[in-house]
Amino acid sequence: MWPGQRFSLALEGGPENMENSIIFHEQSEYQEILVFQSAQYGKVFAIDGILQLTERDAFTFHEMMSHLPLFSHRNPEHVLIVGGGDGIVLQEVLRHKEVKKVILVEIDPLVIHASKNYLKLVPAELYDDPRVEIIHADAAEYVQDPMNHNMFDIILADTLDPLGPAESLFEPEFYEFMHAALRSNGIVCTQGENMFIHFDLIRDLIACCKDIFGHAEYATTSVPSYPCGQIGFILAHKGSSSDKNVKRSCSKPVRRPTFQNDLKWYNPQMHQAAFVLPQYVKVELDDGLAGEDVY
Amino acid sequence: MWPGQRFSLALEGGPENMENSIIFHEQSEYQEILVFQSAQYGKVFAIDGILQLTERDAFTFHEMMSHLPLFSHRNPEHVLIVGGGDGIVLQEVLRHKEVKKVILVEIDPLVIHASKNYLKLVPAELYDDPRVEIIHADAAEYVQDPMNHNMFDIILADTLDPLGPAESLFEPEFYEFMHAALRSNGIVCTQGENMFIHFDLIRDLIACCKDIFGHAEYATTSVPSYPCGQIGFILAHKGSSSDKNVKRSCSKPVRRPTFQNDLKWYNPQMHQAAFVLPQYVKVELDDGLAGEDVY
Repeated sequence: MWPGQRFSLALEGGPENMENSIIFHEQSEYQEILVFQSAQYGKVFAIDGILQLTERDAFTFHEMMSHLPLFSHRNPEHVLIVGGGDGIVLQEVLRHKEVKKVILVEIDPLVIHASKNYLKLVPAELYDDPRVEIIHADAAEYVQDPMNHNMFDIILADTLDPLGPAESLFEPEFYEFMHAALRSNGIVCTQGENMFIHFDLIRDLIACCKDIFGHAEYATTSVPSYPCGQIGFILAHKGSSSDKNVKRSCSKPVRRPTFQNDLKWYNPQMHQAAFVLPQYVKVELDDGLAGEDVY
Repeated sequence: MWPGQRFSLALEGGPENMENSIIFHEQSEYQEILVFQSAQYGKVFAIDGILQLTERDAFTFHEMMSHLPLFSHRNPEHVLIVGGGDGIVLQEVLRHKEVKKVILVEIDPLVIHASKNYLKLVPAELYDDPRVEIIHADAAEYVQDPMNHNMFDIILADTLDPLGPAESLFEPEFYEFMHAALRSNGIVCTQGENMFIHFDLIRDLIACCKDIFGHAEYATTSVPSYPCGQIGFILAHKGSSSDKNVKRSCSKPVRRPTFQNDLKWYNPQMHQAAFVLPQYVKVELDDGLAGEDVY
């Protein structure tokens, strides 16, 4: 997905230590899962050869993915996490005492097995929290089940890039299913790709979200180990029960963290700054994005 | 400077096209200068094997380096650029009609030769603009000359990393000389390194600036082709003639661009967002940084 550029991380102990630095390497029914010990980034988690996260900088992406939508919702009781078997978004979501139930739909049990026993970036008990239910299913099938309609205040799509098993999670149908699965005033937040390399994909996702939700917002964060060091999120608000057309911007938090000391990246100022876009992005997305001045 | 990680850009036409894709490659008295054609990033400029800028994303760094300090000054008439022989900061500075004189102190004539004739990211005429004076000298010597005291409203230190010829430009003495070379209400803006990898260096620079200027601010921007995709700036205000202790934060622009359509990255919202720091950076730099609430 990033032609003409390559990013490499050294193994701990160098190439001759390969045997010791590979912590977990297995092929599941869906994908190839690798956990290795890097020289500078701690443990690294890769799927099908694509870096997903590192121990050293995972907090940047996962805090923003979780807290941007959760702090934009007054009372996020029911949360759906699509993917996210590594447990890091789950950990962030559970910090909100408002959250009563989290359903984590991770298609691949081996992702959770590797995360719980080898990656170990979150306590294993997290997966057994009484508020948590783990379902191994295709998220696209899960959200289209009428049983799950009008169920969630927040849906976090912590997906892979749109190649391989996650391809269907970038299709317009998936956004329609997520819209249906949200309650009134619900918010969806999806992995929104790199604004420098994948601008066309972002434009398509924004257009798709706008069709379905009536509006969309792009927020950005730094992830040092990702290509070009940046990734974005696409957020959209479903509207209120009294008027589905009244959309709230997610760019201003409506609650403040009671657990700020546990956070390394997110704070209320970072929340607002994440929605400020470089001039060329702002201009190019202007048709698609509904900025705060619209509300 | 970035142990354990590597970033590679493909040559246009692949390795077998090396001969054609190397546009300029010479050793000067000071350093090795390379310009090559990359597959995805356009022309790339490297010094001593370290990527300085690419045609595709140079605007992010250079717009912010120039416009953060210039739009924080009500009437920036005299500007000093330290380094910056590639001309890109120069181009941005000259957009401000308030600017009457720009002195560009670039130690290495070959950097300008390569930029003017091979890199060609700015029009060659720019270097001959009547407002511009180019001086080939050591910037540390230039700023300590008493003739240059109280001369500049803005000093932009567009330096290399602190290895090789730029090492002295990261020493406290250099900050003292720059302070002396500024007029009242003058602002210095220096390349401030990556907050993820070079936090210790940033802390030292902030402490050094605080000693000399009485305060310092760190602002951040995205640069897709830089390590970890991020680089910062250190900004400090000299104080007014009536009271050197009254410091103005650079986090809020005091003028607005009349040339917004020429800019791809900077806008007044990006200006303010650049000073919003991740929680761990904010907490760690709290002793050194004087945030806007101090003013």
